[in-house]
Parts: sequence; C-alpha cells; structure tokens
Amino acid sequence: MVESVYKFIELAGTSKTSWEDAVVNAVEMASKSLRDTRVAEVKDLDVKIEGGKVVLFRVVVRLSFKYNPDKD
Amino acid sequence: MVESVYKFIELAGTSKTSWEDAVVNAVEMASKSLRDTRVAEVKDLDVKIEGGKVVLFRVVVRLSFKYNPDKD
Amino acid sequence: MVESVYKFIELAGTSKTSWEDAVVNAVEMASKSLRDTRVAEVKDLDVKIEGGKVVLFRVVVRLSFKYNPDKD
Amino acid sequence: MVESVYKFIELAGTSKTSWEDAVVNAVEMASKSLRDTRVAEVKDLDVKIEGGKVVLFRVVVRLSFKYNPDKD
Amino acid sequence: MVESVYKFIELAGTSKTSWEDAVVNAVEMASKSLRDTRVAEVKDLDVKIEGGKVVLFRVVVRLSFKYNPDKD
Amino acid sequence: MVESVYKFIELAGTSKTSWEDAVVNAVEMASKSLRDTRVAEVKDLDVKIEGGKVVLFRVVVRLSFKYNPDKD
Amino acid sequence: MVESVYKFIELAGTSKTSWEDAVVNAVEMASKSLRDTRVAEVKDLDVKIEGGKVVLFRVVVRLSFKYNPDKD
Amino acid sequence: MVESVYKFIELAGTSKTSWEDAVVNAVEMASKSLRDTRVAEVKDLDVKIEGGKVVLFRVVVRLSFKYNPDKD
Amino acid sequence: MVESVYKFIELAGTSKTSWEDAVVNAVEMASKSLRDTRVAEVKDLDVKIEGGKVVLFRVVVRLSFKYNPDKD
Amino acid sequence: MVESVYKFIELAGTSKTSWEDAVVNAVEMASKSLRDTRVAEVKDLDVKIEGGKVVLFRVVVRLSFKYNPDKD
Amino acid sequence: MVESVYKFIELAGTSKTSWEDAVVNAVEMASKSLRDTRVAEVKDLDVKIEGGKVVLFRVVVRLSFKYNPDKD
Amino acid sequence: MVESVYKFIELAGTSKTSWEDAVVNAVEMASKSLRDTRVAEVKDLDVKIEGGKVVLFRVVVRLSFKYNPDKD
Repeated sequence: MVESVYKFIELAGTSKTSWEDAVVNAVEMASKSLRDTRVAEVKDLDVKIEGGKVVLFRVVVRLSFKYNPDKD
Repeated sequence: MVESVYKFIELAGTSKTSWEDAVVNAVEMASKSLRDTRVAEVKDLDVKIEGGKVVLFRVVVRLSFKYNPDKD
Repeated sequence: MVESVYKFIELAGTSKTSWEDAVVNAVEMASKSLRDTRVAEVKDLDVKIEGGKVVLFRVVVRLSFKYNPDKD
Repeated sequence: MVESVYKFIELAGTSKTSWEDAVVNAVEMASKSLRDTRVAEVKDLDVKIEGGKVVLFRVVVRLSFKYNPDKD
Repeated sequence: MVESVYKFIELAGTSKTSWEDAVVNAVEMASKSLRDTRVAEVKDLDVKIEGGKVVLFRVVVRLSFKYNPDKD
Repeated sequence: MVESVYKFIELAGTSKTSWEDAVVNAVEMASKSLRDTRVAEVKDLDVKIEGGKVVLFRVVVRLSFKYNPDKD
Repeated sequence: MVESVYKFIELAGTSKTSWEDAVVNAVEMASKSLRDTRVAEVKDLDVKIEGGKVVLFRVVVRLSFKYNPDKD
Repeated sequence: MVESVYKFIELAGTSKTSWEDAVVNAVEMASKSLRDTRVAEVKDLDVKIEGGKVVLFRVVVRLSFKYNPDKD
Repeated sequence: MVESVYKFIELAGTSKTSWEDAVVNAVEMASKSLRDTRVAEVKDLDVKIEGGKVVLFRVVVRLSFKYNPDKD
Repeated sequence: MVESVYKFIELAGTSKTSWEDAVVNAVEMASKSLRDTRVAEVKDLDVKIEGGKVVLFRVVVRLSFKYNPDKD
Repeated sequence: MVESVYKFIELAGTSKTSWEDAVVNAVEMASKSLRDTRVAEVKDLDVKIEGGKVVLFRVVVRLSFKYNPDKD
Repeated sequence: MVESVYKFIELAGTSKTSWEDAVVNAVEMASKSLRDTRVAEVKDLDVKIEGGKVVLFRVVVRLSFKYNPDKD
C-alpha cells in the first residue's frame, strides 16, 4: 500500500490593502486545485512602489496538496 | 560582578484576523514570564487553511528575557 | 553606452498599528531620494515591547534607486 | 539547436517505517511523469506525532525531469 | 478571547541503530510535557565515531507544545 | 475583485558555450507558458565535466507567470 | 532501554571587556542547570553603543544539557 | 592611531550581452567613489524578460571602499 | 505624524590586536554620523595574513542610525 | 605551546539499503586517515534514481581529524 | 562490499575574460586528480578591481572525485 | 596561459585564552603549506566546557592557498 504523496507549489498573491488580504487572494484563486491543504507558509513579502508610494502588498506562499500524477 | 544574562524562547501565536494580532496574543500570553523584554523578532509567518479558505494567521516569534537559573 | 546602475539601501520603518503602515512610513520618508524605485523587499519584521505589551511594529526593507555617483 | 531543459518539482512522501521508505514512496508515485530523472535531493525531514508517539516519517524531496512545455 | 500559544523546544535524541530510532527516543522521553504536539522537524543529523567506527546516530528535532506560562 | 496571482517554477537550462546562453535556452523553451513574465532569478550555476573537461554550462532559474488554476 | 536525550537553550551574555568574557559570564550563570554540557556554539555577536561609543560586548550561545522531563 | 575603516555598498548593473559586461558597467559607474576597492562580490544574478525573450542580464554586486565619514 | 525611520550601513574595521578593538575602531570612525545608534551586529570576522602570519583582525558590522533623507 | 589543530573534509558515501549504511561506508573508508575524529555531521542527503526507481542512498558528511601539516 | 566514496574539494579559478573561462581553468588544473568527476557546482563569483577597473573574473567551484584514502 | 588556481581548506584552532589566539594557532600550524594566502575567514566560533566552566576557545577558519595538483 502506497502512502499519500504531496506536491508543493509557490504562488504570489497581491492586495492593495494588506499582506493578509494578499495571502487570502492567492489561496482563494488556487482553491480548486487544493486537495487536503492545511498550511501555506510565507516565503517572501514585498511591496510595489509607483511614484514614491506603496501601491500593492505582495506575498509569496508555499503550499502543498495531495499529488495526482495524472493531473499535476 | 556578573553581567545580566538573557534567555531566548520561541513562541507561536495565532489570530483569526491578522499577523499583528497573532504576535500581540503570543506576547500577552507570555507576559508573566517576560522580565526586561524589549523586542520580539518574527521568525516565520504562515496561515492555516480549511476547506480551501484561510482560517488562521500564525506567527513564530523569538524573544528573550532576563535569565533566572533557579526558575527557567 | 553605459546601462543604468542601481544602488540598494536598507531602511527600518515603524508604526503603532501594523507592519503595512510601517513600510508605508519608510517609503514615504525616503521618497525624495527614490528615483525609479519599483519594489521594496521585506528583510525582517519585529515588534517593540514595553511593560509586556507590543507598542510598535517594525519592518526592515531593502529598496533600490537609480544610482547617481555624484550624490549617493 | 536547443539543449534539453529540466523542470524541478518538490514532493513529500510518508512512511510508517523509515525515511528511506518515504522517499521510495514519493518517487514511485511520481514515476509516470519522471523523464530522465537521476537524483532526488532531500530538502526536509520530519515526523508526525499522535498521542505523544511518532506515527509517520515524512521526507520532502526535490527532483527534476525533462521539461515538456505542452504538458507540464 | 486569546487563541492558543505554542512554545518550541529543540531536543537531541540518539540511537545505536538508526536516525528513525533516535527521533523516536527523543519524542518518547519528552512525551510527558508534549501537549497537542503534531510534528517534530529534523534540524540536524550527525553520527558519533569511536576508534574510526560509527557508534551512535544522533538527530536534533524541533517540536512545539501548547504553552503554559505557569509551568514552562 | 481578485488581484492577479502568479505561480513560480524552476527550470534548468544548459549550453555548450555559456551560462547566458543556457538561461536563454531555458526561457525560450518555456516561452509558450510564460504569461506576463518579467524576471528569471538565477538559483544555481554548475558545469558538467567529462574526461576532466567542462562540456556543458548549466543554470537553474526561478520564474513566475500569471497563474491559471484551470491549466497549471 | 532509552538513550540519553539532550535539550538545547540559547543564552545571551554580556561583558564590558570582550566577547570571550561575555561567553564566560553566560556559561557561569547557567552552570547550575548544565548537566553533561561540553560545547557552547556562538550564534551571534554584537555590541551595544551609547553616545557613539562601544559600551558592551554581547554574545548569543547555544548549548545543550541532559534533558530532565520532570524539571525542564 | 585609528586603522582604516571600509564601507560596503550594493549596486546592480545591467547589460544586453552578458553578466560579465553588467558587472563591468556597475564598477565603471561607481569608479569615482571607489577608494582602495579591490573586490566586488556577486550577490545575485537575474535576467529581464520581455515578450518571452531575455532582454537584459543583471548582476548585483557588493563592494567596499575607504570610508570617509564627512562624505559618505 | 511620521514615525522615525532608520538606515542601515555596513562597515569593516580592523585592528592589529583583537576583533573587539576592530569594532571599536569602526564605531569611533563612524560616530559623527551615528544618530541614535544603539547596536552594531557582527556580520563577518576574518584575519589578514602576510608571510604565513596573522597581521590584522577584521570585523564587518551592520549598524543603523536615524535616517535623514536630505543628507544620507 | 601550540594547541591541536583540526582539518575538515567532506565525503559522500552511498548504500543500496539506507542512509545509515551510507555514512558507515564513508567513515569506514576514511578510517585510516581519521585521527581523533569524534563526530561526522550530515550536510546533504539524496537518492539516485534509475528507470523511475530509487537505486542508491547517498549522504554527504563533514568530519575533522587532527591536522598533520606534513601529510594533509 | 564497500560502495564508492567521494571526496569534495573547493577551488578558485580566475580568468581575464569570463567566469566560464575561469571555471574551465580551475577544472583543467585539477584534471590530474579528478577521478570520476561529473559536476562542479559554483559556490561564489566575484571580480578583482584595480584602479577602478575590473581586471579578473573569479569563480569558486566545489567538485568531488573518487576518494583514495592512501593518497588524498 | 593558465591563470593561478587556489584551493580552500577549513581548519579548527583552539586556545585557552581567546579566539584571536586560536586563529593565530591554526594559521601558524598551517603556515608550511600556505602559498600566497592572504585571508582566513571565520566560519564558526565555539567554546569547550568542562565542569560548567569554559576551558577552550575554538575557531573554524577557511583559507585558500595556491593549488599544486601534484601535492594537494
């Protein structure tokens, strides 16, 4: 019997208001392909700047889901 | 004369609303044993996911306090 | 023809309310000397503690701007 | 002429008996999509604990395979 | 309402036969103070050598448990 | 409104002449699936050796593209 | 039979004269609770500055001792 | 007698042809302010991509020069 | 009201006698431009060798001071 | 009087059965030149794959021995 | 039966023209002692500067060869 | 014409009085085989403890010398 295998991906989400909102956006977007995902680790935080102002909060997260070798 | 010695610990706090709130929770919980603590460094940020949704913001912090070898 | 050259600096901003606000403060303060700056990467997050309470959120960011060897 | 290009993925395998068995499980599961794969590097090792007992050995591996831009 | 707070500790376990056995030893020893512990991450692996022979497998693990400020 | 989400992948390209050529090969190969990609970061450089001679320059790059949860 | 298990802690010691003296201070302070401790690794060195002058040398060390689950 | 003190800066140079050329550009641009500089370490390499093609090689270097507290 | 913003710099100091003396030299040299500086972290230690002998102790420190966008 | 000086080397050992066996092989092979060696730290673990199967466990260890400048 | 054991060394090669040429120089110089060497990983890149000009490209590589305990 | 090639080694030196003295001991011991060595970088600092007291300061240094493939 083979135990479950998980695959990791890294996604970047953005938001105009906060890094919390940015991670929510990334997870929401990916939710269709998330099977049995329980944690998303933050790898990087940054902000985009235009005209000397912060305009976007960006977060890179690493998350895993049940690996389906026929699909992924 | 022996100078002060500090001990480091690492705690994980969580919040349903933000990482700022999560760190406030961790520090509040630990406040009884914090002697002369001035900084808590963030070591890791992540989120818990249930049913494809972010349900909890988690932060791991490292902080130090005056070391009491008889107690700690 | 010489291509553009960029210089990196690291700044720490603080806020009483959030890390997002802290990074906005740092970028705003530096905006006079930011030429063609599009990203600020977060290097470190921490909090200041007084009397066992979180009193300040601090963020260290790394950003680059067009290098002017006569000024910088 | 374009040289071969490889793509990296990270997988987590588990086993009730050992980390060696966990990596064998992960590689076996992925074997359909492994084209010209010769090495899997270990990135992380951990164990799952239930009721104060170790119940599962988990290994995260990074491996590469010949990249097929139409499929991967 | 304050969310749960967790504390991390690092332990080194040893075994004459394998690193898996070494981590089982460390977790077993600590099991009295493990409250709600689900993962132990491996931080370091090494071996002890005597007379040019490997005599002991050693693993350093990092694990967390529900923080009790009155006890820990 | 959901902001754009990006996905990261890591590719290894090779060339008989230079690391610059190796990265050009990897990006060219991936160009069909690159949507809105502006940077590829170098993660690792190495060379392949045969018979004591350098025969291939290899570069591992990390790049992101607009995430399409139905395809990627 | 269960092999010995060790626990790691991190302490910061300070001295007005040298980093060597700072580590001696930290070890001396902790000596009551050190059981079977043979090495203290240096994790960080820094100095405190007042009025533009170095006033204190600080060292953070990581050391382990025989773990006593009833006490530690 | 006070020994010499050096200051470090980080610069990013770019080139359409190679990373070697990019580092030459950065050093040339900075040469007016380089006093007693003998090494520039490479911190990061990346490429800019437009329309699926590599258009620019970028290198981040760290270099030091004799520190002049009245000027720098 | 804008909170204070700090800027980080890295300096290398040297001494013929010790790393402690090297850091004192670097801080002393920089003291004119240090506004509200309380810590200097050690980033690297090395020694210079001539004719097979150690001739100089060198320390690289990172320190921050109140940022003045008109001057720095 | 000169204190003992130690030299570090890094070796990779392999085994068809386990990483424990791989490290035993490496240490055994090196045992002739090991003088006063007490620890071998694990730096990397990986596996070799052939035809989609794990065929070899490989471990890279770092160990030190009493330095003999006339021989080593 | 003992499996093969490999030893790692680190070499720095230099060239006036490119980092590729620098790594070729290092590998060529070492080729006599390279037994069964297939990869050289790049650990560091830097340049030497004289009179404000780049004069040498330097690369540090890590490579392994079949370990011969009687010779190495 | 082949440019010079350098080889790196790592040595641990010890002293009863200071880390500075420990590095002097290591360099002195190695001085016979040091050809054209100008820098030794500190990789690790630690102390040995006996009976709860610091008894030895230890430093691990990395240094390079002109590579002689017939000897080294």
